[in-house]
Amino acid sequence: MYSEVTHTTEVNETGPFLTTLLFSVEDRVGILDECLSVLKDLNISLTRIESRPSKTPGWDYDFFVDFNAEDSKQLTRVVEALRITKQVKIVSTRTSEATEEQVPWFPQKKSDLDTFANKVLEMGEELDSDHPGAKDQVYRTRRAEITRFAKTYRHGQPIPTVNYTPEEIATWGVVFRNLIKKYPTHACREHQHVFPLLQQNCGYKEDNIPQLEIVSKFLKDCTGFTLRPVMGLLSSRDFLNGLAFRVFHSTQYIRHHSKPFYTPEPDICHELLGHVPLFCDPDFADFSQEIGMASLGVSDEDIEKLSTIYWFTVEFGLCRQGGEIRAYGAGLLSSFGELEHCLSDKPEKRPFDPYKTAYQKYIVTEYQPIYFVADSFKDAQQKVRDFANTLKRPYSVRYNPFTEAIEVLDKKEKIVRHTQNIKNDMLILVDALERLH
Amino acid sequence: MYSEVTHTTEVNETGPFLTTLLFSVEDRVGILDECLSVLKDLNISLTRIESRPSKTPGWDYDFFVDFNAEDSKQLTRVVEALRITKQVKIVSTRTSEATEEQVPWFPQKKSDLDTFANKVLEMGEELDSDHPGAKDQVYRTRRAEITRFAKTYRHGQPIPTVNYTPEEIATWGVVFRNLIKKYPTHACREHQHVFPLLQQNCGYKEDNIPQLEIVSKFLKDCTGFTLRPVMGLLSSRDFLNGLAFRVFHSTQYIRHHSKPFYTPEPDICHELLGHVPLFCDPDFADFSQEIGMASLGVSDEDIEKLSTIYWFTVEFGLCRQGGEIRAYGAGLLSSFGELEHCLSDKPEKRPFDPYKTAYQKYIVTEYQPIYFVADSFKDAQQKVRDFANTLKRPYSVRYNPFTEAIEVLDKKEKIVRHTQNIKNDMLILVDALERLH
Amino acid sequence: MYSEVTHTTEVNETGPFLTTLLFSVEDRVGILDECLSVLKDLNISLTRIESRPSKTPGWDYDFFVDFNAEDSKQLTRVVEALRITKQVKIVSTRTSEATEEQVPWFPQKKSDLDTFANKVLEMGEELDSDHPGAKDQVYRTRRAEITRFAKTYRHGQPIPTVNYTPEEIATWGVVFRNLIKKYPTHACREHQHVFPLLQQNCGYKEDNIPQLEIVSKFLKDCTGFTLRPVMGLLSSRDFLNGLAFRVFHSTQYIRHHSKPFYTPEPDICHELLGHVPLFCDPDFADFSQEIGMASLGVSDEDIEKLSTIYWFTVEFGLCRQGGEIRAYGAGLLSSFGELEHCLSDKPEKRPFDPYKTAYQKYIVTEYQPIYFVADSFKDAQQKVRDFANTLKRPYSVRYNPFTEAIEVLDKKEKIVRHTQNIKNDMLILVDALERLH
Amino acid sequence: MYSEVTHTTEVNETGPFLTTLLFSVEDRVGILDECLSVLKDLNISLTRIESRPSKTPGWDYDFFVDFNAEDSKQLTRVVEALRITKQVKIVSTRTSEATEEQVPWFPQKKSDLDTFANKVLEMGEELDSDHPGAKDQVYRTRRAEITRFAKTYRHGQPIPTVNYTPEEIATWGVVFRNLIKKYPTHACREHQHVFPLLQQNCGYKEDNIPQLEIVSKFLKDCTGFTLRPVMGLLSSRDFLNGLAFRVFHSTQYIRHHSKPFYTPEPDICHELLGHVPLFCDPDFADFSQEIGMASLGVSDEDIEKLSTIYWFTVEFGLCRQGGEIRAYGAGLLSSFGELEHCLSDKPEKRPFDPYKTAYQKYIVTEYQPIYFVADSFKDAQQKVRDFANTLKRPYSVRYNPFTEAIEVLDKKEKIVRHTQNIKNDMLILVDALERLH
Repeated sequence: MYSEVTHTTEVNETGPFLTTLLFSVEDRVGILDECLSVLKDLNISLTRIESRPSKTPGWDYDFFVDFNAEDSKQLTRVVEALRITKQVKIVSTRTSEATEEQVPWFPQKKSDLDTFANKVLEMGEELDSDHPGAKDQVYRTRRAEITRFAKTYRHGQPIPTVNYTPEEIATWGVVFRNLIKKYPTHACREHQHVFPLLQQNCGYKEDNIPQLEIVSKFLKDCTGFTLRPVMGLLSSRDFLNGLAFRVFHSTQYIRHHSKPFYTPEPDICHELLGHVPLFCDPDFADFSQEIGMASLGVSDEDIEKLSTIYWFTVEFGLCRQGGEIRAYGAGLLSSFGELEHCLSDKPEKRPFDPYKTAYQKYIVTEYQPIYFVADSFKDAQQKVRDFANTLKRPYSVRYNPFTEAIEVLDKKEKIVRHTQNIKNDMLILVDALERLH
Repeated sequence: MYSEVTHTTEVNETGPFLTTLLFSVEDRVGILDECLSVLKDLNISLTRIESRPSKTPGWDYDFFVDFNAEDSKQLTRVVEALRITKQVKIVSTRTSEATEEQVPWFPQKKSDLDTFANKVLEMGEELDSDHPGAKDQVYRTRRAEITRFAKTYRHGQPIPTVNYTPEEIATWGVVFRNLIKKYPTHACREHQHVFPLLQQNCGYKEDNIPQLEIVSKFLKDCTGFTLRPVMGLLSSRDFLNGLAFRVFHSTQYIRHHSKPFYTPEPDICHELLGHVPLFCDPDFADFSQEIGMASLGVSDEDIEKLSTIYWFTVEFGLCRQGGEIRAYGAGLLSSFGELEHCLSDKPEKRPFDPYKTAYQKYIVTEYQPIYFVADSFKDAQQKVRDFANTLKRPYSVRYNPFTEAIEVLDKKEKIVRHTQNIKNDMLILVDALERLH
Repeated sequence: MYSEVTHTTEVNETGPFLTTLLFSVEDRVGILDECLSVLKDLNISLTRIESRPSKTPGWDYDFFVDFNAEDSKQLTRVVEALRITKQVKIVSTRTSEATEEQVPWFPQKKSDLDTFANKVLEMGEELDSDHPGAKDQVYRTRRAEITRFAKTYRHGQPIPTVNYTPEEIATWGVVFRNLIKKYPTHACREHQHVFPLLQQNCGYKEDNIPQLEIVSKFLKDCTGFTLRPVMGLLSSRDFLNGLAFRVFHSTQYIRHHSKPFYTPEPDICHELLGHVPLFCDPDFADFSQEIGMASLGVSDEDIEKLSTIYWFTVEFGLCRQGGEIRAYGAGLLSSFGELEHCLSDKPEKRPFDPYKTAYQKYIVTEYQPIYFVADSFKDAQQKVRDFANTLKRPYSVRYNPFTEAIEVLDKKEKIVRHTQNIKNDMLILVDALERLH
Repeated sequence: MYSEVTHTTEVNETGPFLTTLLFSVEDRVGILDECLSVLKDLNISLTRIESRPSKTPGWDYDFFVDFNAEDSKQLTRVVEALRITKQVKIVSTRTSEATEEQVPWFPQKKSDLDTFANKVLEMGEELDSDHPGAKDQVYRTRRAEITRFAKTYRHGQPIPTVNYTPEEIATWGVVFRNLIKKYPTHACREHQHVFPLLQQNCGYKEDNIPQLEIVSKFLKDCTGFTLRPVMGLLSSRDFLNGLAFRVFHSTQYIRHHSKPFYTPEPDICHELLGHVPLFCDPDFADFSQEIGMASLGVSDEDIEKLSTIYWFTVEFGLCRQGGEIRAYGAGLLSSFGELEHCLSDKPEKRPFDPYKTAYQKYIVTEYQPIYFVADSFKDAQQKVRDFANTLKRPYSVRYNPFTEAIEVLDKKEKIVRHTQNIKNDMLILVDALERLH
């Protein structure tokens, strides 16, 4: 089992583990209340209880419960207590050692991403020694002030506005001014197409750092992607899982003013100038969600492969357009130096092929010596999908954009519903084609 | 052209018309700024300007503009001004007489529903003489206080909480107490299945009126439907158009305490006890959206037909379940008296067939003498779809749940994208079927 | 169970029943030979033994056996003998009383239609008293001479050539000469479009009776329909079952020369002038196969309904074209008198609706007093499909045109294969759409 | 343009070229007869004239004309003559230099394969010096006697029976006896599964050479593949084109008795023992047709690539099954020596990847030093399809198994029809899934 908790505890104070529990019950009079009583009698610190119509045929209701377990034994006690009632089936739990689950936990609803809110791999509130702001107490305090927004943010809320200081705006301005000179000759077509719209609609300009909330709404209109504030680097699994929901975890703080052209971690410049323009493109959005879908519930080894693919595409990808090679990776589009470097003769360029790209080693501290070149986002999407099908997972999943939830297609009834949706889409297609001139 | 404005002006003070304008431009340097300048120079009162990547192949950007036109001539002037620039194509406008549009305007984005916010057919702020509260100034003031929430509500905001008075809660309590006795024997299976969940999750109980925001989130989890507060009765077109987005316009005020078993207009009892439980069911949700999709851009005559179908299904529908007839229409499930009446021998019961149902006359002031009985929601959906295909519309539409927008499938490129989506869904289906035991 | 044998014995001499037996076996060394031995040891008169890779997952091989059972006990003995070997599963048998089968037998391979070859409801070799040739011994001898071709015809053979006599050609000439005058004003567009092609390619002319073999090949090129010679009227079930394979059972003899404008049974004039031109149209061909598919394995009551639908469409159907009503039913297009009558004001004309048409009584001896008018063949096909879905059948079927066999989609593996076919067709569609200008 | 005639003339006596001409006409009174007159007046030696309902929207009828052109000028004259009539559009012609066609000719109907009948690359009637029978006049006469069947065979006819001599049967016996010993350990699962059926149904045994007609019917039942007799080696294009129709061109003569384990050309042992068992498998059949479809109308360079893929799969392919490698290529399964060699450690084994396999050089005179290993036929099919999509062709094609014709999907109407077929298949799928337990 994937031990998320290890990471969590590094950041959190020692003590209670956030534990999520999903169980299903059969219908009989009073069953809903009984389950509630059981949970309440255990004297645990519940942070969420939701009951919903079950999506699992043969079961009637699903319960989603979050609580802070004092230790792993407490989860065992809760599970035991619930099993007293015969009509209860534990579907999945999320914690460290308590269960014998085979499939790593993954978020099933968009709001489950709330469980990532206070998890961060490193530099959550401290900074590595190589960070230009590591010894600047003012910078660190300001950074912590901003990351607190992410820590308390919950699904459905508007993203809080950050009132950037003149110094922060100046740092942004230097980056912005220099990069936009390079875009016409170095950025891919999709980036160039949408950039003027970001200027007109979202306040992209030298003397203004755009607010995530405004940008997120714009993105939603374009492709359904949305932004979610994050404290810093998430684990690969959590980060990729977010993409399955068309959610991009975005930092809000800015790099240290002493080195405007360098940052050892993602910052608002990287997100807004590098990532956002690409997520406006429908094919790129599909491609990104495809990686996210492939990451749900797979093994740590497979997460490693997908993460490498993500690195060489979304972060450092090149593509062929009209006879030229252009940059579409956010790591390139937000770095004055590497944007120059990547299109030069120095690095090696290989065709994007997930079967090879997934195994390519890389370093995070220097310019890449190797880049992978995609023919098109659509083509890359198809290749990633083919690759994903070779990863081991005991079931198929689809994303239901209406309920913003992952559906596991492991029962006939669910497959029938999916098939009916396709049939309905076919009816629309036939109608549309017949009307086409 | 469909004259929406007539309704609008009845409610609004005389004067400025809310006008929406959609136009597309081709890409060339500076075009986005030029368009902005033209609009600003006209000295009009803009309430929204958005530019987006165009969804129309051959065009690069789309502009969405809302402004308050002083009169119809002003819209003409705006349109003329924009045409100066060759690369501009007026796609659609929404106002009374100013344009030569053939297809009635319809909302293309979920946020376009904001334009309905202060429109209401009747009883928006005044009440008909037959309304039990017509002469109760205190009731009318309170009702207006609550409808103001709807008037100022905008897409994406949480629905404001109403602090119901003890008297209001008492009225709700009487209705609630009496109806829940009848449900086990009169309500359809879907209603009974979800009702305990509403009690457990959304505060459905005798001494509490549930808040729309909480109910809306629950609905979203179940089927993707959401609630939106409304001042009162919308025009049929507006109301049905909302269903295309899985949005149900719901009142927040409650009927007059003097007659707890009667209301001449929808109120919170009707919405929460009648409508909400059904919108939790996936098949019913599909069925309702189907009616909504069918209503986009069709003629007034066709709106009339769809509205009649809505009346005899969503409001007053019966269905066959396990050898018995049960009620699923909200008008029945929220009326103690008619719930009894509809399953008795007195009224006539006919099989639901949109080709006939659409032409059945009905009265709104008494119990229905005729009801239509559906075999299942899925079956009814298919029949409504077949019927909808016979309505005249110059193009096919699909709803994109990611961008929450209607896509008009009138260009090859859009159809190709839709086809690719189907293909991707087919790949998921093949994978899911192969894994099925 | 559907008692086909009763009909068979009326025509055949008393004695052996043609019995078909389908069973599946699991793979183990020598199993194929064992089964063969069992059958041979029973000393039955085998007319076919075929073993094939099984289409039923979990089983390895299928056996198709035809034999002439002396009586029903013999079939029981054969079934018992085969059951000795554990790996044998009896899938279906076809005979009168011997089995407890629930689903009436139906042909699963195109070559199974051979079992209809010497079955005929009436007038197989004798003629009813109202037949104009009933007392003409020369005519009856000639008619029997021609029907013998049908009796011995087997799937895959070319249809034997009939050397029509000058008298027969003269009868054809009278019918042909008179009908072609009416077609431009009375026949549907599809009939008129293809008629000149039949004249140019298949020898349709006043002084020549076209040969079925030539016409069948032409049909095959147009829509994949083929003709198969038949002795006379088949049972409704057999006849409709044939349509599922795009096979039309066609007589070869001609009506009595004394009454060239009248025939109480189908004859070559009726087939070639009435039916064949319509089967050249792709939409009509789909429509006809749809009725055939619906008829496989359903109850006698449902056969009755489908047969009535067939009567009011393929035989006596009218359709609306360009504001006018035209004839497309073969019974009309081959009858000088009724072609005139059907478009006159005398008969009643109702819209085609299988839910009503299926229950309409009709007489076979006079001009019809009621006709049903279709909007288009495609529309009629969709309506018949909807209607067919309401008929009871325990499984879904598809026709595999490569193997010319019916596939029962009752196992996951078969459904997966069908789904993969759809997926492949979707890939072709996406490719075709992308290339379309 | 692809010069088919060069090959033809090598075999034919000098003189007339078989020329096929396809043209379409618009409907007007008498147009069919006019076209016929024009052709007749030209005094050319017509071997086929067919007119059919046009499959090209906007045109009414299609003409298929075959004639023996004396020289290339005659074709020009014919084309000129037809153009006099305005309603005529020349769709395609097939001959050497006469036309400006861009897309190489390909068969559009199964019967078009008749034009390959007397074409053969080499060894049609003469034999290379390295052929063991090259100097055996008796063998050469017998061989020519048998190939004459292929030369005169036409679509739809039963394949003529060859009465093999005792000496021929003895040669077959040696090959058969030795190979069946190896199959249990060397042949793939699919080959082993079907082999006993071929023994039981088609006369596969040591002392009998099975007849193509019987084998072809068996194949038809399994997968819809059929055999067609051929004089010897066809050009790659012709041979692969045949596979698009699920037609396999099979020789009927047998290798020289002096060397029963060697043959420099395909013979009946190779076809029946190597190819036939595999074509019984549905996935392999799909795979083979896929190569065939990819070969229609592509350039000579692309034919070369597909032909190489065919070589390393259908002829010399290996596959992975249950942890072992097994042979499925016909060249292996019909060669005692190479079947041993291919699974030994001597040759190199690489994973099948059409992007690489297509470019691998190979020799035909010795055992292969490199083999390619497929994961499954289904997987190989998908890969070949992906590869095929990278080949240049101006349009998409599908095979219509009802009419046994290739449909070019280059018009909206055809694409609509294809889409409707998919929709109908989806309806069947939904129905089948709903009924599945």
